[in-house]
Amino acid sequence: MTDSLIVRLRSDLGDAAVVDDPDVLDSHRNDHATFCTAGRPRVLVRPSSTAEVQAVMRAASEFRVPVVTQGARTGLSGAANAVDGCVLLSTSRLSRILEISVEDQVAVVQPGVVNADLSRAVLDQGLFYPPDPSSWEMSTIGGNIATNAGGLCCVKYGVTSDFVRGLEVVLASGEVVRTGRRAAKGVAGYDLTRLIVGSEGTLGVVTEATLALRPAPEAALTAAATFLSIEDGIAAAAAVMASGLRPSLLEFLDKPTVQAIQNYRDMGLPAEAAAMLIAQSDRGPRAAADVARIAEICTAHGAVDVAEASDAEESRMLLEARRLVNPALEPLGVTLVDDVAVPRSQLVALVRGVAEIGAKYQVLICCPGHVGDGNMHPTVVFDRNDAAAEARALEAFSAVMELGLRLGGTITGEHGIGTLKARWLETELGPVGLELHRRIKQAFDPDNLLNPGKVLL
Amino acid sequence: MTDSLIVRLRSDLGDAAVVDDPDVLDSHRNDHATFCTAGRPRVLVRPSSTAEVQAVMRAASEFRVPVVTQGARTGLSGAANAVDGCVLLSTSRLSRILEISVEDQVAVVQPGVVNADLSRAVLDQGLFYPPDPSSWEMSTIGGNIATNAGGLCCVKYGVTSDFVRGLEVVLASGEVVRTGRRAAKGVAGYDLTRLIVGSEGTLGVVTEATLALRPAPEAALTAAATFLSIEDGIAAAAAVMASGLRPSLLEFLDKPTVQAIQNYRDMGLPAEAAAMLIAQSDRGPRAAADVARIAEICTAHGAVDVAEASDAEESRMLLEARRLVNPALEPLGVTLVDDVAVPRSQLVALVRGVAEIGAKYQVLICCPGHVGDGNMHPTVVFDRNDAAAEARALEAFSAVMELGLRLGGTITGEHGIGTLKARWLETELGPVGLELHRRIKQAFDPDNLLNPGKVLL
Repeated sequence: MTDSLIVRLRSDLGDAAVVDDPDVLDSHRNDHATFCTAGRPRVLVRPSSTAEVQAVMRAASEFRVPVVTQGARTGLSGAANAVDGCVLLSTSRLSRILEISVEDQVAVVQPGVVNADLSRAVLDQGLFYPPDPSSWEMSTIGGNIATNAGGLCCVKYGVTSDFVRGLEVVLASGEVVRTGRRAAKGVAGYDLTRLIVGSEGTLGVVTEATLALRPAPEAALTAAATFLSIEDGIAAAAAVMASGLRPSLLEFLDKPTVQAIQNYRDMGLPAEAAAMLIAQSDRGPRAAADVARIAEICTAHGAVDVAEASDAEESRMLLEARRLVNPALEPLGVTLVDDVAVPRSQLVALVRGVAEIGAKYQVLICCPGHVGDGNMHPTVVFDRNDAAAEARALEAFSAVMELGLRLGGTITGEHGIGTLKARWLETELGPVGLELHRRIKQAFDPDNLLNPGKVLL
Repeated sequence: MTDSLIVRLRSDLGDAAVVDDPDVLDSHRNDHATFCTAGRPRVLVRPSSTAEVQAVMRAASEFRVPVVTQGARTGLSGAANAVDGCVLLSTSRLSRILEISVEDQVAVVQPGVVNADLSRAVLDQGLFYPPDPSSWEMSTIGGNIATNAGGLCCVKYGVTSDFVRGLEVVLASGEVVRTGRRAAKGVAGYDLTRLIVGSEGTLGVVTEATLALRPAPEAALTAAATFLSIEDGIAAAAAVMASGLRPSLLEFLDKPTVQAIQNYRDMGLPAEAAAMLIAQSDRGPRAAADVARIAEICTAHGAVDVAEASDAEESRMLLEARRLVNPALEPLGVTLVDDVAVPRSQLVALVRGVAEIGAKYQVLICCPGHVGDGNMHPTVVFDRNDAAAEARALEAFSAVMELGLRLGGTITGEHGIGTLKARWLETELGPVGLELHRRIKQAFDPDNLLNPGKVLL
């Protein structure tokens, strides 16, 4: 049977850009989220220009077919999962760095550029693109924009949206709009740029982004400290944040996480550690003094073991424990990564509450996180072959979100809503807020073609 | 004749909060913008709680009467000007600092709090609220949010929106919505907070704001340099921005501005100066080295006179020229302050172009500005009693905006659209962008009651 939509797309984009091979389609159904359903796509397209994206959206509008935009599908909330009968719009051929301007400290890129490729290209010119989600070696700028990705550096530099000056966006209608500006400041009209960033492909398809860059950071040094209580570790983190030292990284590992890492590889982490902090300063000539001051603060807050790096190699080694979190948890079972963020004053209650939830539902929950931002990643680990354990894990996952909201926080600090947390969104936003969201979605996409069922149910 | 709306408002808010004295109404018609029409208000209300703001909006909705929210009316684009028959909603009684949290580094405030009062209150607790529009001694946080106000510190710290974590907003319907969060990060749903910030009272009435704070800055030192050409001055500024020094202030004065200041008060500014840069570093122990490095950069770029402050008093004196810009221009005539922002690479073209526009229209245009952000304030100065000069001044003002757009910039970096630039908005946004704005406005305010005729015509 001839599929007239596919015929149309082949005519508009050329045969090579339109894929309906069932195996290929099947391999593109999911992002990296666990426990998110994915539909069966109708076709995968790989446009290579803004005009071709417009053609895809015009065809989709005429045929009333949903469109799901995909970058590297490294997302953790199912936002890039296929929906039944959809067009998968891959940004893989929109992967050019169009410009790097040293003078204006901006880069202009297509959405399919991989974060690491951009970061390295700008570094070659003495510049710095800070957003560093842990997927940065694979994930695309378009995907980072769709989810407003964070990372380790946020504590000093902010999140993706802090570096997006302007966007070119193809709307559901196929029209193109340019938002924002290349200039550093501007207040002409509503902030459509920020509205698009983090909208998870539900308001438009980003086809170009103008990104702010900074001068390359100075050399960084690391400090690490272990504590005998959660309270001590969190209090030390708060004191570091209050100190004016501006750490460029401030990570927390709880006891189950430290133990999992030590079991995975002998890092000499003390068995009695109830909390571990890892901090960096990238203030060049001040970094050594900063790291010494961080070490002092940790000692003053009861740290039993404090290490200060004096060079890049020692810094890398002290950071290694943090880098081993995912590899260390993987052999232990399936992981369900949560992403609550709370005001820092609520962090002790969060970490303690997560431990209680683990005990209640009899599942292992490790609680690493970006403590400087209050953004923790309680990670439920369980045996997939044990259906009862899986059910308890899902209940624990929900209980963690409930706890985060009760503590004045959010259900997602940086991973997004997708399908994973869509039924929780109203709890956070309230009915009036949710209704405003629906009206904004309607204003952009009246036929609900763009990533339907994501974010807003 | 009984005004049934006023009767209703008195019943809801109490007599003292509802003013219909014609003299008082008349004195509240305008903000600080020149050349913006203002209508005749029907009544002025001073609600003192969110519930009272809701009552005002419910009454306005029922009576189909427009509502113009006013802070200190220090805005420069007419956004706070009355429209005919409107309710003026003053935030003067919503002026409480509700909380300052050292641990979470946030302040929770009502919209009528004066920027300077908040800044001083948080400084008392070792914290820092950076946004510093030049009106900061008078302007309110609500007004700063409405216009997404900038200031001198933006070059290092960003603008108002970079410090707004969450808002409580009363919608046109009288419903209340809370946007954003107290936590440092969060991506649950669309960024309604950023959509409200800078929307100039057209989408809702902000009744509470949760603001991010930073640790108090370290001591600052100032450097100042004069140049014989615009090119040298701008090139030096670009080099400072590229250096990684992170100046906390970087201001430019062109020749007419330097001359006006020197004529107003003998600051020893050289008559041959074609450009002047003033820079600060607030990196405490590094500030002296930073200022020395800035001086070196200026010398390397041809500065004829370079001064480095070695203490706070010398720093203040070097900054004095910048502070005298407005007092120095005032005696020369009426001023019409523009606010274009361009990519830094276009600054020479902007400053030269502004001089050409001044010559063409035979008006004095001084061109001071926040050179680190590319946000300049070309200021047309003319004799109000000379109708022909006034007409030429208005043409010159438009020509400056045209130039800013032609150079890839924006018509407003930090002052907003209001009524002053509303007819220019489509030129910047394009028809598709403008239509999206209309649909968003419609989603929030279907009866067009909130500040009608501002931003969107």
